[in-house]
Amino acid sequence: MVEFKSNIKSIEWTQKEEMNGVSKMIDQTLIPYEYKYVEIKTGQEMFDAIKTMIVRGAPAIGIAGAHGVCLYAQEFAKTIQNLDEFKTKLKERAEYLISCRPTAVNLRWAVEKQIELINSSNSNIKELIKELIKQAIKLEDEDIKINKRMGDYGAEVVPKGATILTHCNAGALATVGYGTALGVIRSAFAKDPTIQVFADETRPRQQGARLTTFELVMDKIPVTLITDGMCSYFMKKGMIDMVVVGADRIATNGDTANKIGTYTVAISAKYHNVPFYIAAPLSTIDTSIKTGDEIKIEERSHEEVTHINGKAICTEGVKVINPAFDVTPHELIAGIITEYGILRPDYNKSIAEAFEKANK
Amino acid sequence: MVEFKSNIKSIEWTQKEEMNGVSKMIDQTLIPYEYKYVEIKTGQEMFDAIKTMIVRGAPAIGIAGAHGVCLYAQEFAKTIQNLDEFKTKLKERAEYLISCRPTAVNLRWAVEKQIELINSSNSNIKELIKELIKQAIKLEDEDIKINKRMGDYGAEVVPKGATILTHCNAGALATVGYGTALGVIRSAFAKDPTIQVFADETRPRQQGARLTTFELVMDKIPVTLITDGMCSYFMKKGMIDMVVVGADRIATNGDTANKIGTYTVAISAKYHNVPFYIAAPLSTIDTSIKTGDEIKIEERSHEEVTHINGKAICTEGVKVINPAFDVTPHELIAGIITEYGILRPDYNKSIAEAFEKANK
Repeated sequence: MVEFKSNIKSIEWTQKEEMNGVSKMIDQTLIPYEYKYVEIKTGQEMFDAIKTMIVRGAPAIGIAGAHGVCLYAQEFAKTIQNLDEFKTKLKERAEYLISCRPTAVNLRWAVEKQIELINSSNSNIKELIKELIKQAIKLEDEDIKINKRMGDYGAEVVPKGATILTHCNAGALATVGYGTALGVIRSAFAKDPTIQVFADETRPRQQGARLTTFELVMDKIPVTLITDGMCSYFMKKGMIDMVVVGADRIATNGDTANKIGTYTVAISAKYHNVPFYIAAPLSTIDTSIKTGDEIKIEERSHEEVTHINGKAICTEGVKVINPAFDVTPHELIAGIITEYGILRPDYNKSIAEAFEKANK
Repeated sequence: MVEFKSNIKSIEWTQKEEMNGVSKMIDQTLIPYEYKYVEIKTGQEMFDAIKTMIVRGAPAIGIAGAHGVCLYAQEFAKTIQNLDEFKTKLKERAEYLISCRPTAVNLRWAVEKQIELINSSNSNIKELIKELIKQAIKLEDEDIKINKRMGDYGAEVVPKGATILTHCNAGALATVGYGTALGVIRSAFAKDPTIQVFADETRPRQQGARLTTFELVMDKIPVTLITDGMCSYFMKKGMIDMVVVGADRIATNGDTANKIGTYTVAISAKYHNVPFYIAAPLSTIDTSIKTGDEIKIEERSHEEVTHINGKAICTEGVKVINPAFDVTPHELIAGIITEYGILRPDYNKSIAEAFEKANK
């Protein structure tokens, strides 16, 4: 176990010298055993880092994608002089980065911002690279600001002395910093230090046990670890006052994809009349889809289910299905906490209004 | 991983020589890494074996308790000649065995059968010991017969080609043999080899991953391992046709204590309109309690949550609560499969009728 470092910044563009920048990120596969930064130096390294979840969390992989485009740009600039060829190749690699993880829409959102810039810029290769890096850094800075605004809005619906259940990790580690669901908790705790958190372990990858408790212990926010099946037991006892989780993609009707197991928690919350909130920036809302049925669910390797810390937990010959996400239908969601306020049903309407506000 | 042995008998009284019997049991803490029998030779060893879950599963720990009384009897016979003193001491140790695990009522049920025999017998010490052993072996034999009868009844409600979800292990390993919930599955599979099973991992102790998949692979019944939070995802997709689980204690209104996480599955089943069944012998019904509110829930060590295979999965400083069971209210239960048929709501009535039938 490691020493705690406060004020996590999970991912950050770091300029070593001109035309030589790297993406510095916390290797989240090592937490809680090690807490260390790694430097991602090439586009392919970034693809692999996202795929293997060295960096994870919808907003964080958005930033990682934006960085990835910058890394590819630096590489191509070494061999390609023709601007059109450079742009074509770079956009092709940008699409490749988007394909890396299909469910979280923030990856596509951020990489497409870079593609738009590539298309609209009139600069030469060297200047274009500077513009791409500048935009990536702007997205980083905005991420933290957005999370703090979201936190302020969310804190208003946290009851005095509440016990808040969360699933997976939607914290500083899932974003650039501060967090979405854990941002709400951080803001609430700043106002009311009597609140506490229950964290679902979140099998198979245990982001709740490994990452959420790590962050919260670091910030001295009281946290109790429970296994995923326990939520209903504590809700029935009246020990959970609200649920807040992050999101990987939200349809325009409010249906929300998030880490597998979220939907089960939402059903239980409904059954016990516990309000269930999503905390996510507008960049997580996919305005191109009407319902959650249109969200592609990533399936990940069987070893995530059959092995823990490299050791099998079951006999051989067992079949496995490992969907990484599920979709919580809008009717189970009390509100979606965004940087433009808390959206309430009817979500078609409130989401459209939030985008209007954002685009003003 | 180990070679499979079919036709599991998880616990068995084994007479070495006169006045020297042992309880031979599979050490379930070692599965799936090792599959081996251990011999429990003293009453205290039996208490520890139940406590540390070398033997677990409500019906199996009932038999273990009955064996435990025999082991104490053999020990006391070495130093105590006076019958009254022998009986008093033995009953005191029997009560101690009952205290070992508070939730599963079968332990109390079986040990109390031995206490009744101690009270009613007019034999001398040596003969009384023989009677206690005879009764323990009778309970073993009856357990398998009861499970097969339960299996036959349960198989009737399994749809053709069904996918059946189960939680924890209510199999041969949880009983003397054949199993309760897995007994239903075995009987159904014998009639219809197109059925298949989804097994919840069942954190914290992973009895689903470690034991249920082990048993089913052994019997060549197709089994897919899922994590506890996934049940709702598969139910929503229409991939689960029914749920069947075991029980640790059932109140006379049908409220059922079973492994933690069961209640969450039951809520999800209700939400998706998937029938949720309990499979348990009448010995699991506690006629002394009216509702599940009266069931004491055992809390177990924090390490079961924070450690897997001896390795921590979270940072230090995290709080834990580890209830080993939860209570599923009767309104979520479609039927209770017993050796006297499938009981349906109103359970107060159907349970009373089943006991009438049994006592005839």
